[in-house]
Amino acid sequence: MPLSIRPAGAGDTALILRFIQELAEYERAAHEVRATEGALSTLLFSPSPKAACDIAELDHRPVGFMLWFYTVSTWEGRAGIFLEDLYVTPEARGAGIGKALLKRLAERCVAEDLGRLEWRVLDWNAPAIGFYDRLGAETLGEWLTRRLSGRALQDLAAA
Amino acid sequence: MPLSIRPAGAGDTALILRFIQELAEYERAAHEVRATEGALSTLLFSPSPKAACDIAELDHRPVGFMLWFYTVSTWEGRAGIFLEDLYVTPEARGAGIGKALLKRLAERCVAEDLGRLEWRVLDWNAPAIGFYDRLGAETLGEWLTRRLSGRALQDLAAA
Repeated sequence: MPLSIRPAGAGDTALILRFIQELAEYERAAHEVRATEGALSTLLFSPSPKAACDIAELDHRPVGFMLWFYTVSTWEGRAGIFLEDLYVTPEARGAGIGKALLKRLAERCVAEDLGRLEWRVLDWNAPAIGFYDRLGAETLGEWLTRRLSGRALQDLAAA
Repeated sequence: MPLSIRPAGAGDTALILRFIQELAEYERAAHEVRATEGALSTLLFSPSPKAACDIAELDHRPVGFMLWFYTVSTWEGRAGIFLEDLYVTPEARGAGIGKALLKRLAERCVAEDLGRLEWRVLDWNAPAIGFYDRLGAETLGEWLTRRLSGRALQDLAAA
């Protein structure tokens, strides 16, 4: 199979940033991307990285990526993984590349005894939701995700 | 003010586990707690910890805790914080301890240039939801959280 998945390296920041922008365009949020190559380099490739990234290649041509970080469940007393981004370029879709990326992450969960693999999907993204349903992923319907950012975050810090 | 907040240490695992269990009872999920002191020790106090924990003390008596870890936003190109657990003992509630813990985390976000402070709340937990509303926290209503765990996670790894 000509598909390979490899860890991203410091030379991949321009590619990763392009994929992030393409994914944000698909998610109708291109205007929200403020990431830069330098910022990605710090997050992913500094001595204490905050996240990890893998690149999918078809015949040595990059066709997608995923970016993830570790989480912790206190109920389980175990770490887990949160998948921040999963993206396959439009021309490479339908060939199982997204599933291959998710499978790679599931393999890591099993190998490292991690209890959960989690991610978020936009509620109107029907193709992705169907894909996740077929994998048996549950929806955390009883839990609301709350966020403080920008001015509200600064206000609390200064309260 | 007799309230102090200090980082948890290796000697706090029994206390943290008790707080986790009390919080799970409040969340009607006591049966889901499988954490052990040893597991918490690995997650929090190993050479490469997956999360951090702070203890709130009133007159040197522990009255609450929070447990959190770093996240990454690719749109922002910045790290953030996810608050996994926030708990104040029943007899110490109403004195601003929960807000003091959240404020401490917001201060860290500002100091470290983190873009987001996020957490989850059960949709029936009206007191907590009101508290978060008053802080100006938004609800990520358009995003569904999906999870693979247990058998479905193992099946994908073996697919």
